[in-house]
Amino acid sequence: MITVTMRLARRVQPLGCVLALRFLVLVLWDVPAAWALDNGLATTPTMGWLHWERFMCNTDCEEEPDSCISEKLFMQMADLMDSEGWKEVGYEYLCIDDCWMAPQRDSKGRLQADPTRFPSGIHYLANYVHSKGLKLGIYADVGKKTCAGYPGSFGYYDIDAKLFADWGVDLLKFDGCYCDSVEQLANGYKHMSLALNKTGRSIVYSCEWPLYMWPFRKLVIGNFGLSWDQQITQMALWAIMAAPLLMSNDLRHISTQAKALLQNKDVIAINQDPLGKQGYLLRKEDNIEVWERPLSNLAWAVAMVNMQEIGGPRSFTINIASLGQGVACNPACHITELLPVKTKLGFYEWTSCLKTRINPSGTVLLRLESQTT
Amino acid sequence: MITVTMRLARRVQPLGCVLALRFLVLVLWDVPAAWALDNGLATTPTMGWLHWERFMCNTDCEEEPDSCISEKLFMQMADLMDSEGWKEVGYEYLCIDDCWMAPQRDSKGRLQADPTRFPSGIHYLANYVHSKGLKLGIYADVGKKTCAGYPGSFGYYDIDAKLFADWGVDLLKFDGCYCDSVEQLANGYKHMSLALNKTGRSIVYSCEWPLYMWPFRKLVIGNFGLSWDQQITQMALWAIMAAPLLMSNDLRHISTQAKALLQNKDVIAINQDPLGKQGYLLRKEDNIEVWERPLSNLAWAVAMVNMQEIGGPRSFTINIASLGQGVACNPACHITELLPVKTKLGFYEWTSCLKTRINPSGTVLLRLESQTT
Repeated sequence: MITVTMRLARRVQPLGCVLALRFLVLVLWDVPAAWALDNGLATTPTMGWLHWERFMCNTDCEEEPDSCISEKLFMQMADLMDSEGWKEVGYEYLCIDDCWMAPQRDSKGRLQADPTRFPSGIHYLANYVHSKGLKLGIYADVGKKTCAGYPGSFGYYDIDAKLFADWGVDLLKFDGCYCDSVEQLANGYKHMSLALNKTGRSIVYSCEWPLYMWPFRKLVIGNFGLSWDQQITQMALWAIMAAPLLMSNDLRHISTQAKALLQNKDVIAINQDPLGKQGYLLRKEDNIEVWERPLSNLAWAVAMVNMQEIGGPRSFTINIASLGQGVACNPACHITELLPVKTKLGFYEWTSCLKTRINPSGTVLLRLESQTT
Repeated sequence: MITVTMRLARRVQPLGCVLALRFLVLVLWDVPAAWALDNGLATTPTMGWLHWERFMCNTDCEEEPDSCISEKLFMQMADLMDSEGWKEVGYEYLCIDDCWMAPQRDSKGRLQADPTRFPSGIHYLANYVHSKGLKLGIYADVGKKTCAGYPGSFGYYDIDAKLFADWGVDLLKFDGCYCDSVEQLANGYKHMSLALNKTGRSIVYSCEWPLYMWPFRKLVIGNFGLSWDQQITQMALWAIMAAPLLMSNDLRHISTQAKALLQNKDVIAINQDPLGKQGYLLRKEDNIEVWERPLSNLAWAVAMVNMQEIGGPRSFTINIASLGQGVACNPACHITELLPVKTKLGFYEWTSCLKTRINPSGTVLLRLESQTT
């Protein structure tokens, strides 16, 4: 049983692929982020770690032994996901991205891991990752080459699917570079999906980066480019949008603050809410966006985002009756602020107002628990 | 003796003003940032604090008594500039921006401070600021209204200049909203400059925001929207460009880290270098920009900026001979890293290389001291 991770065009690609990927995005946008394909798997967003945004295609293990794409890097991350509380809060998939392969297939047409950087091989790595109670993700491409120029899966879908299953891989990120036409790309995705299913191994095959929105579409909390308030906004919106929490950072070097944000159980609970409905933009007024998401047990999540980058913290007052399609707090609800600081705000009646302050580029994330009696 | 602060169009304006302001920008771009007008004042960039980017046009002192534009706000900032080491490192001007005025001129055609928010008046505030060893900046507009809609100086240049001088004001930021034509704007600036000169009081009249470049054109270190590496980049580039260090933040609530960066004496020394030459982009390769600035005593400042926002810290190697027009390190120099962490890197010969690592969106700032013997 199988799921496939697709990615949107991030590098220059033939026009056909770009078009096709955009089409796929539109399709995916309207479904819950966990794309279950009627396969019986849980419909909650994937959680894990992926190397690309932080380590990219660094293959120079001589000059940069600690940040090149190698089995050592993934084993270190697996150790930390296990020991530093990541696994415990739900980060389960450790995902290899592009640049893990040797430049050529072997004599039997099989992909091979780069022998210098992955001397023990992917099967060994999968076993290692499983021994930590985690799952391993791998990367391939539907076209003739991967985006970084390594061997593509075109013409080898069955061979590659069998190999990944034999290795014990649990997730495939299937990229969309180097195909000649939209048809080739669409057929390739379909073919790989069937090939993976035929292996009999359950491999996740789902949408990686669904968020094409401010401030950044990649989950890069703990890296270099986001202010603290921007990091809060990212985590809150990922939760509201039921987006896969595939972080890309360096778990060996992450601030206590960023780690606590990524491991915030209340926010993760919104992201993983079993109702499985994506949130939406309720309204935008004077540079403040209000997002909301229906949750199980008649609860709601509400995110108020201050899109203005200058100025100071802004006061913002919202009518309780306007939230949750008029029913979230009818006749009343308990409201808890989850971000930036967990605070019980108390009991609010349907006709009341909630006043808050939101930092520039920051977000206030609330959870509303219905009080029906 | 007089200098005038001009600002570039930041809000929607009549076309003529925008054109004129763009023209002025081009003119200013080629002159040292301290725009001395042959007036004998030092040619180092202005240093101080300005309320706009942090407090904007907040006039609601009832709801937000601590962040509305009022004499209390400026007196608090003056106290802190004096007591918290800002004055000591050179931040001298405390500048009021738009929204300080009452909505109407008085019966004699004079501007008045809003009586509720500035009950003691600007003269009193100037005296208070002077008593702290600081100087006071004020704001007016060349057109019929200020950008926020308060009374403009058009038709009142002589009255306003005399009033500012009588109040004891030390700097004028003269904005460019609400004029009917390019000619009106240019004539207005000229007229005000002459009017200020006639008062006999020395009032600074210079270019406020010269940096139209990545990452942000306003000096907002200590606020909400910049990561730590972006803040380092901002401070380094402000120094290289000899840009006026007019910060806009809340000195009552600023992190120790941001304060130390803004008060970094080595970086300020580059900004204020008496040679008075602006730096320039030396080259850009693979998303790393190298900037340099000639300093007094044959020293040079060099900033290497990692423009790539994703990935990890990047190794970067530079030929010493390529820096400072081939002479900075001929035959050798001592190099000190100033940012992100002050580190003596030691002695470098002309034919040697310097290897460093630069964080995404961050900068490594160096000072090269010539060793001629």
